[in-house]
Amino acid sequence: MSDAPARSHGTRRVAPTLKPRELLQATPDYAGAFQAHVITLFPELFPGVLGASLTGRALQEGRWQLHAHDLRQHGLTKHRNVDDTPAGGGAGMVLRADVVGPAIEAVMHGARGRWPILYMSPRGRRFDQAMARDLATCSGVTMLCGRFEGVDERVIEHYGITEVSLGDFVMTGGELAAQAMIDATVRLIPGVLGNAESTVEESHSAGLLEHPQYTKPAEWQGRPIPPVLQSGNHAEIAKWRREMSEKLTRTRRPDLWAAREDG
Amino acid sequence: MSDAPARSHGTRRVAPTLKPRELLQATPDYAGAFQAHVITLFPELFPGVLGASLTGRALQEGRWQLHAHDLRQHGLTKHRNVDDTPAGGGAGMVLRADVVGPAIEAVMHGARGRWPILYMSPRGRRFDQAMARDLATCSGVTMLCGRFEGVDERVIEHYGITEVSLGDFVMTGGELAAQAMIDATVRLIPGVLGNAESTVEESHSAGLLEHPQYTKPAEWQGRPIPPVLQSGNHAEIAKWRREMSEKLTRTRRPDLWAAREDG
Repeated sequence: MSDAPARSHGTRRVAPTLKPRELLQATPDYAGAFQAHVITLFPELFPGVLGASLTGRALQEGRWQLHAHDLRQHGLTKHRNVDDTPAGGGAGMVLRADVVGPAIEAVMHGARGRWPILYMSPRGRRFDQAMARDLATCSGVTMLCGRFEGVDERVIEHYGITEVSLGDFVMTGGELAAQAMIDATVRLIPGVLGNAESTVEESHSAGLLEHPQYTKPAEWQGRPIPPVLQSGNHAEIAKWRREMSEKLTRTRRPDLWAAREDG
Repeated sequence: MSDAPARSHGTRRVAPTLKPRELLQATPDYAGAFQAHVITLFPELFPGVLGASLTGRALQEGRWQLHAHDLRQHGLTKHRNVDDTPAGGGAGMVLRADVVGPAIEAVMHGARGRWPILYMSPRGRRFDQAMARDLATCSGVTMLCGRFEGVDERVIEHYGITEVSLGDFVMTGGELAAQAMIDATVRLIPGVLGNAESTVEESHSAGLLEHPQYTKPAEWQGRPIPPVLQSGNHAEIAKWRREMSEKLTRTRRPDLWAAREDG
């Protein structure tokens, strides 16, 4: 495929069976499949959770592709150093611009169409469902993962990198954030989710929290299923569910409730 | 260890080398180590990212322990069914109370001290650093992961389960949320982080975003390191960093800025 990203020495295309060689030949190379590229010091952590269940099946079907690039392949000297001490002093290490830069260049060489570069950082814009929906319409994404280090600010400026945060908490590295964002994005690619699995998304998109769910048995630990759900009256059931969703949203997430267009 | 959680048939203690048998003998069984229990349909996805780097080293050192429990071991009939259709109709499936309940009982049989049960759900309270700090002071945590299904509401009520959300986005399952929350928690356990790695946390705890970082080379792509950082004047450097942190926080996260105690 002529528009496929160039594969550098340290790159392996990751597939759920963890047999890269076999999958380089066996995976259908659908033109236009969403391309997720991750630059990391721990490429072996991919696909991780993304290799299971719906995202894993879609990966095997070629509906999207995952490439984990080893940042250390661009490291300097025989020790493959990727970081150095912060200019101006202080604790911690900083990923070097002249290491991260070439890693990004190698990936973006094959980029096409809308293809943002994201840096996983607690400093960034908070990831949300709107961003997942937007990412799912891109040709691909390149995600840079730090690992307790920061990254030299000049890299962020030079490539116009968007800093994205999974939330207001600190993790030991960006890899879990990248996997979470890729998961949320890939499940929105047409054909990845069946109809049955898309209900949570619909509920969330409407700006409401999901109503309580029940299933068999009719009674458990002295607790019955609410009678309305067993009434067979579909209008009443829909009304009850709507009311429960609204009540939950008002109580638990007044911010979401206030932000609703019809709230 | 007499107060260790009972190990049911479907449980394997997970360690980064993925040789459970060996690690059952080799891992130091520190009394009082933080116990993370995950109930999931995909126990093979653990430790995943948690097996690498600092969290992985701490796992091997016995500073915390991870147990992944296969929910399907509690499934019903010869097909080990764990879910059924929603009472009242609708798409999707719901995890049965009489499957999840026994799974929780088996884990909590060995619980001691403060030990919350969390359900990974977009409906829940948003996970944040304060919650990570609180969890790190608990004896253990039990995390229930759904996978496109909801869970029967009666389980949540009966066990007083806290619903926790990683953020306002929808993932295909709770496993990545569990790993992210465990990562954020475990790195706060004393001895897991070195001094050098704790700087981001400190910055975040102060309610400010981290200032830009730079390292060698002095010039890259025509971009120099800001001269103040190379001045050797520590007071000026500290002042510049503080100003940059404040500016970033005001611009990017007015909500954090407003919430600062001295803001």
